[in-house]
Amino acid sequence: MLHTERHATGADRGPDAVVETILDLAAGLAGKARAGGLTPVAVGVTVPGVVDEVAGVAAWSANVGFRDVPLRDLVSARLALPAALGHDVRAGGLAEARLGSGRDFRHVLFVAIGTGIAAAHVVDGQGFAGAHGAAGELGHIVVRPGGTPCGCGARGHLEAEASAAGVSRRYAALAGSPATAAEVVARAAAGDAVAIQVWTETVEVLADGLVTAQTLYDTEAMVLGGGLAEAGDALLAPLGVAIRERLTFQREPILVRAALGDEAGCVGAALLALDARP
Amino acid sequence: MLHTERHATGADRGPDAVVETILDLAAGLAGKARAGGLTPVAVGVTVPGVVDEVAGVAAWSANVGFRDVPLRDLVSARLALPAALGHDVRAGGLAEARLGSGRDFRHVLFVAIGTGIAAAHVVDGQGFAGAHGAAGELGHIVVRPGGTPCGCGARGHLEAEASAAGVSRRYAALAGSPATAAEVVARAAAGDAVAIQVWTETVEVLADGLVTAQTLYDTEAMVLGGGLAEAGDALLAPLGVAIRERLTFQREPILVRAALGDEAGCVGAALLALDARP
Repeated sequence: MLHTERHATGADRGPDAVVETILDLAAGLAGKARAGGLTPVAVGVTVPGVVDEVAGVAAWSANVGFRDVPLRDLVSARLALPAALGHDVRAGGLAEARLGSGRDFRHVLFVAIGTGIAAAHVVDGQGFAGAHGAAGELGHIVVRPGGTPCGCGARGHLEAEASAAGVSRRYAALAGSPATAAEVVARAAAGDAVAIQVWTETVEVLADGLVTAQTLYDTEAMVLGGGLAEAGDALLAPLGVAIRERLTFQREPILVRAALGDEAGCVGAALLALDARP
Repeated sequence: MLHTERHATGADRGPDAVVETILDLAAGLAGKARAGGLTPVAVGVTVPGVVDEVAGVAAWSANVGFRDVPLRDLVSARLALPAALGHDVRAGGLAEARLGSGRDFRHVLFVAIGTGIAAAHVVDGQGFAGAHGAAGELGHIVVRPGGTPCGCGARGHLEAEASAAGVSRRYAALAGSPATAAEVVARAAAGDAVAIQVWTETVEVLADGLVTAQTLYDTEAMVLGGGLAEAGDALLAPLGVAIRERLTFQREPILVRAALGDEAGCVGAALLALDARP
């Protein structure tokens, strides 16, 4: 990683403005690289939502408002370079599987547990996008029928019950005072009864979701990333026990913490760009 | 299909005797083919349970009692032919995807709903077995937490709630008299209130399971086979409605009925054998 920039998405400006910002940023990065004596050979862009990687189209995004934006071709035309468009979590999973904590395994499920929950299934270093670019939406499987309303409109989804936002919300409802997920983890470790209850329930719900994923994907290793995974052993140790309790004949996945942090998506975008070179 | 034979598994005789029967049958089929002027070029065998297709090992089966049986090499040695070992449902899915109802689609999930429930995920004509040969165990995801005990030891699994056996059991419990799943479907169509209730609940539970599968796999088409799928439109029509009600941003899968019936597994075994030729 030679150079990193962070810019706000500014989604409130609408999807067209976000696309312009992405194009300006990509052109600016290419210009800086050339000014530094480097030769850009390809561009990788990753975005959230439903992404058709084959067509290079950002098909849908709740947060950014994308609706069928041909982002790959827009980037390629603007920079006059080969380009690849990817899904943020799937690209992060690709990076973790090829270069990060999954590098010793052939069948990897990368699970990002942060504000939302999503997964990327990577086999032999190739990410699996599904028929419409919507595979791996682990945050939107029902784990508590009739449970907490989810941002997508359904109820009882894993993301609504056990994301970092869900942990924070549940603690606030029970304790009557706000706390981030990280604070809930710290308070649970310090013996706070409400925090212990919320964290225990969260681990149980996550185990339910990951066992469903294991039953369908039969992974070798699950690489846990996103904000909630920063709890480290406070998450992985009880989660491993809870998963083991739920498995009957299914094979147990090896649980590991992600290695690349919040740069996994950027590294994955670069891998997609390299794969896209003619 | 030139010749078909059906023989009882005789699982009560133990796994060694079942293996001997399989070897005898395969040798007998090859002999009959040669006697008829044909030249066998490869053998395909499919079995239920956890099957390691790469190693050619029947790793585990509740029904037959297999524990790490190197069935591919045993068959190959006995017949002096190249051999392939596959999983019965995954092989059936391969056949449906390549030659049956899935042949017009690239991303297919074959779902066998009979005494048990299992699925096979096939993309571009290649079946996906998972890291340990246990992928696609759709019957063993939890759809009703704390619900009906499943044969595997857990509770509330799709197979326990909505297999043909589950339908029959539920009807008997509510109506006080036994009925097969097919009879429940017929009685529901004829207006029997208990049968309507059981069938409606079954469709709801199946929709819950298939929506979870769609959320993780993002299939293009789901091919429904097994005994319960013989209900035809009495299953597919309400199931399609129930799936649609549950989807939020996920793409809707096309539902189709399997075309190859209970010979899908045999056709799939032949496809695996052809793929295994040197």
